[in-house]
Amino acid sequence: MGLDEFASIRQWTSGRQPQEWQRSRGVVIGIGDDAAVVGGPEAGGSEGGEWQWLLAVDTMVETVHFNEATMTEEDVGYKALAANVSDIAAMGGVPRHALVSVSVPPSYGPERVRRLYDGLYACADKYGVAVVGGDTTSSPQHLVVAVTVVGAVEAGRAVPRSGARPGDAVFLTGPVGMSAAGLHYLLAERSKRRRSGDAATEPIPLSAAEAEGIAALVREHRRPQPSVLAGRLLAKRGTCHALNDVSDGVASEAWELAEASGIAIVLNQARLPRSGTMAAYAHRAGIDPLEWILYGGEDYVLLGTIAQTDADSAKSELAEHGIPFYMIGVVEEGEPGVWLTGDGTGKRMAIAKRGYNHFAENQR
Amino acid sequence: MGLDEFASIRQWTSGRQPQEWQRSRGVVIGIGDDAAVVGGPEAGGSEGGEWQWLLAVDTMVETVHFNEATMTEEDVGYKALAANVSDIAAMGGVPRHALVSVSVPPSYGPERVRRLYDGLYACADKYGVAVVGGDTTSSPQHLVVAVTVVGAVEAGRAVPRSGARPGDAVFLTGPVGMSAAGLHYLLAERSKRRRSGDAATEPIPLSAAEAEGIAALVREHRRPQPSVLAGRLLAKRGTCHALNDVSDGVASEAWELAEASGIAIVLNQARLPRSGTMAAYAHRAGIDPLEWILYGGEDYVLLGTIAQTDADSAKSELAEHGIPFYMIGVVEEGEPGVWLTGDGTGKRMAIAKRGYNHFAENQR
Repeated sequence: MGLDEFASIRQWTSGRQPQEWQRSRGVVIGIGDDAAVVGGPEAGGSEGGEWQWLLAVDTMVETVHFNEATMTEEDVGYKALAANVSDIAAMGGVPRHALVSVSVPPSYGPERVRRLYDGLYACADKYGVAVVGGDTTSSPQHLVVAVTVVGAVEAGRAVPRSGARPGDAVFLTGPVGMSAAGLHYLLAERSKRRRSGDAATEPIPLSAAEAEGIAALVREHRRPQPSVLAGRLLAKRGTCHALNDVSDGVASEAWELAEASGIAIVLNQARLPRSGTMAAYAHRAGIDPLEWILYGGEDYVLLGTIAQTDADSAKSELAEHGIPFYMIGVVEEGEPGVWLTGDGTGKRMAIAKRGYNHFAENQR
Repeated sequence: MGLDEFASIRQWTSGRQPQEWQRSRGVVIGIGDDAAVVGGPEAGGSEGGEWQWLLAVDTMVETVHFNEATMTEEDVGYKALAANVSDIAAMGGVPRHALVSVSVPPSYGPERVRRLYDGLYACADKYGVAVVGGDTTSSPQHLVVAVTVVGAVEAGRAVPRSGARPGDAVFLTGPVGMSAAGLHYLLAERSKRRRSGDAATEPIPLSAAEAEGIAALVREHRRPQPSVLAGRLLAKRGTCHALNDVSDGVASEAWELAEASGIAIVLNQARLPRSGTMAAYAHRAGIDPLEWILYGGEDYVLLGTIAQTDADSAKSELAEHGIPFYMIGVVEEGEPGVWLTGDGTGKRMAIAKRGYNHFAENQR
């Protein structure tokens, strides 16, 4: 399906049940954020209880999100859960439970499925997630893994996409573009192997430092680190007004905040964090690193907005936990949109909404 | 994958995280029941709060669970949600929220996906389920729908598989085998069409009553009715010790209760409810109706055990709500197993564990 078709599907699925009715079922935030926020049945709805629950689902499909050149089975299992943990982090919550649906094609024997679960449980143990259910079915041809994670957040403290306010500082909790660079490397290597047929290929000479850098990029792609602690610290401050994880790239995520909040986001190019490793590889590959910074995805750091007056203090608190906090722009009143300054000309460049497409550059 | 392979996957996924650790994450019942039961974070675990939460996931895969001859797109959407609602019913809970993962192959344009959502929302509205999230991805070849439902049950009232006690009455809340008969009809019709190629087939003469009966069987297969009210009434009585929905057939579900509870179940063949419509079609198709009663699946009625002293009273209460309650056997001490009496010989026949296999009779 094309992007337009996905857009029309999104349209049918949002707003299909009246908001008032959903509220009577405890829904605080429904479709359209990183995770849904729901209350318990105690108070007949959203107001009861000390905690609210966070619900998120993510699906990984062989040939669409990964293939045998980009991920091992362990990586697939790990990342399928990590993607959901990241969605919970992006609401400021704690991940608690997971349900796993795996559809297994004939090409996967039990041993490959076991490795997938090894990776999934490695992620579960790391983030304290109890795997409480699953459904394993056959699949005629491709592996499909759909994971649902249930999390919790103090009632009223979930950080939505829609709360950004004019004057807020825009921040990132880490560098971006590394996962996209890692994926580029993996797909480029596969293309090389294919071009040379089955014959042994000439290894490309890499310095030890380069090899280490590339391994780090590949690790970012295969074993991303959801920002649970960063999300918790930010949610507790009460001054963080909007939050997203960077699963679809900075441009796309900033657009989501802008549209949901009805504001404009102005990013300063000079302040965008740039991983030296990523930039070095981009140079080698002949690609503008800004492309990966803005349009790469699956970095799992958080992009958000925070009251300007609390930004420095938040930065200090995150620093105490070893978490970076880059102030990369500001929120302004105006038509929803994303702008880029700081290219030296004093002009603003409109940033397109285009999202991250896993395998767009090379092909399956 | 074969059944053995599924069994080994089940083995790796159950008991992989220590029970104590899972308990610290609020897990009351984990993998291995119709739905997981979890508590909120309030009391640091399972004891806090007035309600507990129920979590279930079910997956439907094109060519494995349905094809274009057996289900329309609306049916697939409806049943994908209904299967989960039935899992919540089988714990005695109320379904509240759903998350939907749909992987869409190129053969499905947006219009077909819209119809799938139409069916899903029809089920959601009927059972009061708020759809709060989803993930729509591409699929290279086949449609895969994985739905997660979150429900609630009064703390401590969830009815597990493991509570059956010697002396309990075994009951069913409705006739079984109808869905399997409906599926048999749909697949047989397709085989006929295939044998006759593209040429118009001779319609089989059916009386109006027969046609109506077959339509009812097909409806049972395509639009099953989860037994939420029956589950709620039974859970509230406090005397219902074990409960399953009949998604995999009476034999398989009874085996699950027997193994989880460490007891033997003795069913009386003469008391097994037999739908006249199903029996008539079975006769026509040359199949023993007992086969579909024991080994058909996806009927979504409930199979459970209840204190013998409360069985008549439960039957009366369910009758007030128009829900049947068939007492079909008893629970005995002994090695886990399922037995059948009442064939007139006075002997007991051991019932094999074999589960329901959607497309086993005819083939794709």
